Parts: sequence; structure tokens; C-alpha cells
Amino acid sequence: MELKELRDKIDEIDDELAELFVKRAQIACDVAEYKRAHNMAIMQPGREEEVLQMACRNIPDGLKDGGRLFFTTLMDISKCRQQQLLTEVVPFRTVSETKDPVVGAVTRGSYTADACEKFCGSDVNIRYFPDFGAVFEAVENGEIDYGVLPIQNSTAGIVGATYDLMLRHSFYICRSTMIPINHVLAAKKGTRLSDIRVVTSHEMALKQCSKFLGERRYAFEEASSTAKAAESVAQSDDRTVAAICSASCAKLFGLEPVAHDITDIKDNFTRFIMISKEMQVPENAGVVSLCLTVPHTAGSLYRLLTRFAYCGLNLCRIESKPVPDSLAYLKQDAFDFIFFLDFIGSIADENVIKLLIGLEKQMRYYRFLGNYEEI
Amino acid sequence: MELKELRDKIDEIDDELAELFVKRAQIACDVAEYKRAHNMAIMQPGREEEVLQMACRNIPDGLKDGGRLFFTTLMDISKCRQQQLLTEVVPFRTVSETKDPVVGAVTRGSYTADACEKFCGSDVNIRYFPDFGAVFEAVENGEIDYGVLPIQNSTAGIVGATYDLMLRHSFYICRSTMIPINHVLAAKKGTRLSDIRVVTSHEMALKQCSKFLGERRYAFEEASSTAKAAESVAQSDDRTVAAICSASCAKLFGLEPVAHDITDIKDNFTRFIMISKEMQVPENAGVVSLCLTVPHTAGSLYRLLTRFAYCGLNLCRIESKPVPDSLAYLKQDAFDFIFFLDFIGSIADENVIKLLIGLEKQMRYYRFLGNYEEI
Repeated sequence: MELKELRDKIDEIDDELAELFVKRAQIACDVAEYKRAHNMAIMQPGREEEVLQMACRNIPDGLKDGGRLFFTTLMDISKCRQQQLLTEVVPFRTVSETKDPVVGAVTRGSYTADACEKFCGSDVNIRYFPDFGAVFEAVENGEIDYGVLPIQNSTAGIVGATYDLMLRHSFYICRSTMIPINHVLAAKKGTRLSDIRVVTSHEMALKQCSKFLGERRYAFEEASSTAKAAESVAQSDDRTVAAICSASCAKLFGLEPVAHDITDIKDNFTRFIMISKEMQVPENAGVVSLCLTVPHTAGSLYRLLTRFAYCGLNLCRIESKPVPDSLAYLKQDAFDFIFFLDFIGSIADENVIKLLIGLEKQMRYYRFLGNYEEI
Repeated sequence: MELKELRDKIDEIDDELAELFVKRAQIACDVAEYKRAHNMAIMQPGREEEVLQMACRNIPDGLKDGGRLFFTTLMDISKCRQQQLLTEVVPFRTVSETKDPVVGAVTRGSYTADACEKFCGSDVNIRYFPDFGAVFEAVENGEIDYGVLPIQNSTAGIVGATYDLMLRHSFYICRSTMIPINHVLAAKKGTRLSDIRVVTSHEMALKQCSKFLGERRYAFEEASSTAKAAESVAQSDDRTVAAICSASCAKLFGLEPVAHDITDIKDNFTRFIMISKEMQVPENAGVVSLCLTVPHTAGSLYRLLTRFAYCGLNLCRIESKPVPDSLAYLKQDAFDFIFFLDFIGSIADENVIKLLIGLEKQMRYYRFLGNYEEI
């Protein structure tokens, strides 16, 4: 047979399939209506396996796996539709942006300050805390309006720590941004590059500038952070010492850059989030963040993603983290991982709200982390 | 209508659907056979959209989204099957385990040493390198047999750095393990707990023991790593100073634990991988690691996962990382993220090999990172 003929045959079969798909959807709706009237749950796991067995009983062995997936997805699509039809839209309660906010962050003069300025303007009122946990706490108890935290990439240990804390505290993400990591070599005012003999910084920052440093013969001193390094240079009388830090950190400690742009990799970013106690969703919010568990069985992540695919939503980030100690009950139920999902979407979209309400009802652990703008 | 009646109707429709599914699969096979004979690619994107449009043209609006997903998945299942039928299995070339290996790692006395011992026995020959990149390089150029690197959770900056390096170097993962983070307070021999006045360690380790430390009134000194802290205590004559580090680190520097188990959170782990230059796959290898890009369009991650669902494979870890500078060409093609996927499976399974061969052919960026045992 020629290709054209074969394709025509497939088109014919697809017409029949489409007809059955519509017919099935109508009956599934009647089932959903019946369940609603009789107060029954949409999801009935026992029935699902029964339908699968029944539907696949005549499918030959080589096609059985495909057949099961075909019918599983068909049922999932059907459930998505029922969910859409039966879920009442309850708009999320949100508050408006805080004017002249007090913003909490960690480490004076790190890239965090750049993030705070990008979020809230150059005259932002920043209060510094000893660690990320303290920032989360201050947001939670209303002591500050916003907290700013690094969440992805680059410098030391940050990501893991922030993710762990996200699971332990109540908050909403209300903005996110990428800050370029762009170190300078900073020294006391009037120092020339040729005067420098010793360079001090955080181990990670020293590594990030190894090409620049490798071309010169400096002695090195490790500091516990780039800000501490800058501070020690500011406090020292020795003009042969310089620190590697951000331009804003140099400025903060009254140092002057003697060399700019000294990082090996030019487009190295850290992603920061801004968090608030109440949910703030700007009009142009385009990203939704969630975290949830999925059962540790084959295809369960896939079936979760069917829900997003049904709504045409594009997942842009997905991270799996081991379940932490603070959520030990999930481990007992054999949930090993918590998934952090970001997708492009808005809670102004009814289908997104319905999807989220469905997840909240049906997932063992689920949290809505915010709908915000990436600036 | 009663529920039983409605369900019977669904079962009837499913029988018809199953029949059409099988019929369609047979014709799709003929198409695949035709394509093979005429040297045509399985994937023909233009045709796909044509089939979708055609198939969904009679589906009413409220069902259109579901209909598109239904037919997309049907086509994806069909492609998975064609892939399985047409792909010739080429077994992966592997080498056997190295006896009495030289193992490369970073930081003397950190938890890395515990990982090395768990991987290769207590008399393992460890060679230390200044940073993770140097370990990858030494494996790549055959200078050492294995490299051991932290990859997930806990202490400073490790994960991001390791993932970035994974994209820049050629290697295979040949084992992985979880090492409990279990700090001790270590001092010079003969020191009593009541003698201690000052505690030194890495910032992160100090934080991890804040409950223990909070109950006592110590002064603190930050060090750049737990190993450096232990070393400084060993070199000092001051018997009132103690370091927070692992038990094996204390031993390495001739220190004695004066307090055990001082970490706040009891089940804190770091996951380590062991890497080799050639692919080593033990008989009981049960985890496969991959990294790849997916197009930045709605549903593309979902459709990738359809391939795994088709084979009944369970994804156990998934991480998305921004495309690094070293793979800048991917960014030009608008790939923003690289996904690291771990799934339960073995390359002894023909369907897994076929899946991997398909991914290698069709993904813009794809790397097989290993098939190994979690010990």
C-alpha cells in the first residue's frame, strides 16, 4: 500500500475515535453529575483499574503497554474535564502591594542587596538578619513586609537551604528576579591594581575568578563571605590587600573597584525571590509556583503532568527534593520526594484556579507558593 | 440513568476504542515499515499537526483541549511502539570494576571520605584535589580510577557546582549513596566538654548544630570548611577551642569527639556519586541517570515523559537547571533548561536501551550519565 492510502485509513480511524471520544465524554459527564447528586468522589481507584482491565482485555500482548497508557490518559483527560465542570471557582484572596516596605535579607553587601533594589527601588529600606530562617520568621510574624532570598544557582549552599526553609514556613512568593554575578576587585580608595599583593574572598568567589587571578601572582586569603572579605579590607590599614565582591558590596564598605568584570563565566546568575505573609498577585503575574508530593509509583508524576497538559500549561521549572525531617509523616506514607513546580499561568485564569483547587483536594501534600512576576 | 447503566455504556465504548486502537497501531506499523523501506524519519512534525487538526475538526469546543491531548498521546504512543519495533538494540559497551582503585575527592576529612569508604572499602586509596573540577579532570584524563562528589542536599554550594561540572566533563556515574550528616564536637585528646569556650566550624555546620550550641555559651569562629576548622584546632595549643566536623574528620586530624550527634536535624543526608571514565554497570544496577533539553513549548516535558510512561518506567528524580554558559548554543536555540532525570531501570532491559537510543537521536542535547546501584 502507498503512504497516501495508509494515511487516509488512519484519518478514517481517527474520525471514528473522535466520535467515540465525544460520546464517552458525554457519558462521563452524566456519571460525574450522578456522583455530584449522590455526593460521591470523582476519583474511585478501584473502578479505574476495573475499567483498564476491561478495556484492554482484547488488546494483544505487544500493544498492551500502549493500550494501558492510552486508556489511562483517556480517563485522566475525562477526570480533568469533570473537575473543570464540577469545581466552583473560588477566587484567591489577595492583598495589594505594600508601600515603602521594610525588606529583610541576609548578608550586608552581597548580591541580595542588588535584588532588594531591583524589587523595591534604590531607596529600599533593608533590614539584615543572621540567616535565611530568621528572614522567613520575620515575614511570618509580620515584623517585616517582605523577605528577599536567593533560590537558584551560583554561590554557596543557598538553594538547598532556601528550599528546606520554604517547606517549614508559611509565605507567598510575590516576585522573582535574576541577578548577574559580576565580581569586582575592590580596594581602599586610591589603591592601584599594581599595588595589590593579597586577595581575600569567599572560596566560591575566588574560584569564580580563577582566570583573572591565575594571570597574576597574588597570595590568597579565604573569608567566610564576600561581604566579610570586603569588611576586612575596609578595616585593615594594609593597602596591598583587595577583596573580591559585588560592586554594591564594595560601595557599602567604602571600597573602590580596581578591576571590573573579573568573573570567568560572564552570564552567571542567581535567582532571588521576594516573599510576603499575605498573597500578593500583581496584574501581570505570569508564573505560578507549587510544591507537592506524588506517590512513588510508576507513571504518577506523568499522570500529575497530564493535568497541566490538559490545560495547555507549560511547566518551566521542576525540582525534586527529598522529603525533609519536618514533614516526616510523608515519609511514613512512602512519599520520598517533594516536587517544586513552576508553570506559566495566572490565577486570573479560571482553569488554573480549578486545577489548583483539584490538586489541593487530591494531593497528600500540596502548597500554593504564589503567582508572581519575574522581573 | 443509573450508574450501572452509564458504566456499561462506557465499557461498550471502550471496547470499540480498543478495537480502533489496535487497528490504528497496525496501520501505523505499516507506515513505519514503509518509512523504513524508503529511508524516511519516523517523526514528521508537519504531518503531526495535520493529523491533529483533521482528527479534532468535529470535536466540539468544550472538548477540544481534551481531544488534542487525547490524539497527541495516541500519536506519541504510536511513535513509542514504532521506535521499539524499528530500533536495533546495540548493547552498551561497558568495562568491569577496577580493583584497588585510586579514588579522587575534595577536602580531607569531610563526609566525602565516608562516601569513599562506603564505595570502595575502609582501606580505600584516596587522593585529594583542590576542587570538584580537578576531580572531574583527573577522571577524564585517566589519572585516577574514580571520582567521588557530593550531588544533593546539605552543605555549602555543592550541588550546583557538581551539576555544572557534570555538563562540562565526560564521565559515567557508576555508584551513588546517601551519607548521614552527623557532626561531632572535636577537641584535642584529653579535653573535657566543660573546658570548651570557643567553637569553630563552617558557617553551615554551626547552623546545623544551633540547638546544641544554643544551650551553651560558646564564642564562635567561622572557618571556610569543617576540615579547616578541625585542622586549626589540631594545630593550636589552646585547649578551650573545639571544632564541629564529622567523626572521620576528627580522627584524621588526631582530635577526639567530646560530644556526639550534635546536629539538630537527625536525618540529614548528603548524596554522593562515584564517577568513572568508562561506563561500568554492575549486575544489580537499578537507576539510570540522563540529562537532556526539551523545547520550551507547552507540553513538551509532558510528551517526553510519555516515552517513560509507555515503558512503565518510574522517574524518581527530576531537576531542571538553567543552561550554562558552556552550552551557549542551546540558549541560542531557545532551550532555557537542562533536565536531569533519574529513573528506575536497567540497560539490561531492551526497552530501556531502545528508549535511550531514541532519545539520543531525537533530543537536541542528550547525555547518558550512567546505570548504577544506589548503595
